[in-house]
Amino acid sequence: MRGIPATWMRGGTSKCWVFRAQDLEVPEMTVDEVLLRLYGSPDHRQVDGVGGATSTTSKAVIVAPSARDGIDVDYTFAQVGIEQAKVDWGSNCGNCSAVVAAYAVRAGWVSAQDPTTSVRVLNTNTDQVIVQELPTPGGILTEEPTTEIPGVPFPGAPVRMGFVEPAGRTTGRLFPSGNHVDELPDGDNAVIAATLIDAGAPVVAVRAADLGLTGDESPDQLDALPGMLPRLDRIRRAAAVAMGLVKTPEEAARAIPKLAIVSSPAASGTDLRVLMLSMGKAHPAVPITGSVGLTLAASRPGTLVAEVVDAGGRPRSPFAGLGLDTAAGVVSTFVTETDGQQVVGATRTYRRLAEGVLFLPDPTRTDTGDES
Amino acid sequence: MRGIPATWMRGGTSKCWVFRAQDLEVPEMTVDEVLLRLYGSPDHRQVDGVGGATSTTSKAVIVAPSARDGIDVDYTFAQVGIEQAKVDWGSNCGNCSAVVAAYAVRAGWVSAQDPTTSVRVLNTNTDQVIVQELPTPGGILTEEPTTEIPGVPFPGAPVRMGFVEPAGRTTGRLFPSGNHVDELPDGDNAVIAATLIDAGAPVVAVRAADLGLTGDESPDQLDALPGMLPRLDRIRRAAAVAMGLVKTPEEAARAIPKLAIVSSPAASGTDLRVLMLSMGKAHPAVPITGSVGLTLAASRPGTLVAEVVDAGGRPRSPFAGLGLDTAAGVVSTFVTETDGQQVVGATRTYRRLAEGVLFLPDPTRTDTGDES
Repeated sequence: MRGIPATWMRGGTSKCWVFRAQDLEVPEMTVDEVLLRLYGSPDHRQVDGVGGATSTTSKAVIVAPSARDGIDVDYTFAQVGIEQAKVDWGSNCGNCSAVVAAYAVRAGWVSAQDPTTSVRVLNTNTDQVIVQELPTPGGILTEEPTTEIPGVPFPGAPVRMGFVEPAGRTTGRLFPSGNHVDELPDGDNAVIAATLIDAGAPVVAVRAADLGLTGDESPDQLDALPGMLPRLDRIRRAAAVAMGLVKTPEEAARAIPKLAIVSSPAASGTDLRVLMLSMGKAHPAVPITGSVGLTLAASRPGTLVAEVVDAGGRPRSPFAGLGLDTAAGVVSTFVTETDGQQVVGATRTYRRLAEGVLFLPDPTRTDTGDES
Repeated sequence: MRGIPATWMRGGTSKCWVFRAQDLEVPEMTVDEVLLRLYGSPDHRQVDGVGGATSTTSKAVIVAPSARDGIDVDYTFAQVGIEQAKVDWGSNCGNCSAVVAAYAVRAGWVSAQDPTTSVRVLNTNTDQVIVQELPTPGGILTEEPTTEIPGVPFPGAPVRMGFVEPAGRTTGRLFPSGNHVDELPDGDNAVIAATLIDAGAPVVAVRAADLGLTGDESPDQLDALPGMLPRLDRIRRAAAVAMGLVKTPEEAARAIPKLAIVSSPAASGTDLRVLMLSMGKAHPAVPITGSVGLTLAASRPGTLVAEVVDAGGRPRSPFAGLGLDTAAGVVSTFVTETDGQQVVGATRTYRRLAEGVLFLPDPTRTDTGDES
């Protein structure tokens, strides 16, 4: 068998195995084959591999020093199939993104400065640059667990993640339909008002009140409402067409666009209550990509998001970010401008869980010796 | 933070982190505290640790060279709590047991012989000696993945596991009630015939026909039958009293005794169809501890198990083991005598998944440096 160096890290609310690109180069195997075998796929339990048998724990981060100007690290995300022998390279994972800068500093690809170190990461799946800032007092990456985020019961080391010029990365426009508010058919011979945003990821925002909701429903309560999830999925698919992502509602991908239900917040110091859908169900938190879209929508008067935020009496200018009130806790986003580029993001946490080698059985021989 | 050396191994149908006992000695922390923090407990997702968020993937194997005569390795099993901050040291895990011999040979605690190596393992939770035999052609542990077992979709390295003198280890007697067949109340003003065995683990065996079953039901079909699981649990609890494990049915532990439904087999070359319950539900396979009990029950004429086996026309003498027909596949057990001791067991497989260090945050300081 072969030993493949790897580091296991929590990033945000996911667990991700981190590999150097060169370490996944195995003779007579594709990278897909290597990842699937290491993770124990296909198998709903992934019992013979390092996969965690859930979508948030069957993820890989593949990194290398970048040869591109102004970029420190090239980062590719892989969603490793569980029951299916399939690796999905089609999207980024905001959670796993949070581990890249710390990995690069520890690998010596970026020199730590005092008091913070900035790492420019290119996500190759989405062609998105993410500027990541780590505390490095005295030029040392201490990984001090000072920070808590919703969905993780232990404190972790913070990383400030800024998406550079996120607007229109999928469709070319921040508002792909050309409007700040659209009327979408919701399938019940009715229409619903929606704001369609492309930033971080394509997002459709609707008002809780327009769905007959308060917005304070728990994820479980929302999922249990008769007919609600199918109705939200119809709205989501209509939005996919209105954004020009697909030609018919049937073609819409399951994860794109994301759908956010917005209302006035309850938590003090926040601007917007958010309940987001993930893979067809209500989610207690908010993904960083979704929070980027909502933040830019809030920055433009006339969107549904801005209307809800403005109703809270918050001064509009200068607009520096949003406090998002989610079922799992508060997420604070920021908007800044650096070198003439808009940067939008939030602080996440990460932790190194384990470091070592993963063992890959040889697929072509049965008389395996140990080469690790 | 501190780096703790560990090896991640699949044993049977479980995933187990293997630690040397000395590596879990951390100043100002108990072993329980160390394991819980490494695994990310308490948290139903174990997102900030190496636990897999299911009972079969939140397990630890703690090993050390043994100072006892005739024993090579002391092995302690720990079931690490997931949502509860609690480590259970009360039982062994047959699956995790399968990794101990290979670990000991690789650690240099036992010298490999040609063509096989025998390792004597003492499980300290149950005071059970398990003799484990590994193929080591030419005195080398090749870990060649030659063998498949039910419940694992990939081949693994085989280990022949023999439980030494397993009879009566919990109660002092192979048949704790003194009978080969007992009549147990099943709670419906009726009684059901049962064989109560203590070997490997306490097991109660009942006939499928006496429950109105064919025995060929799938685990899902059995679970779906109205009233069946509660009825089986009443029988199990009545058996716990009849075996002297507890004084009242209410006191019976959830996992002890195990319950097996037996009938004539369908698979060729097998002797007994078995459907076992695990944690209150039907399980597709059979744990090695349960298979030890059924094998010794089959070896004694007059038990329900022996009656079913004999009905298959198999010659009784010499009795060398059983072919068990389970929903997940066939399991073959063996019975031998070595140095005047009875040894009962089966072949399982294992695989090393990963090797390295796990990172333990310092619980008493927030200014953690990296000491790994």
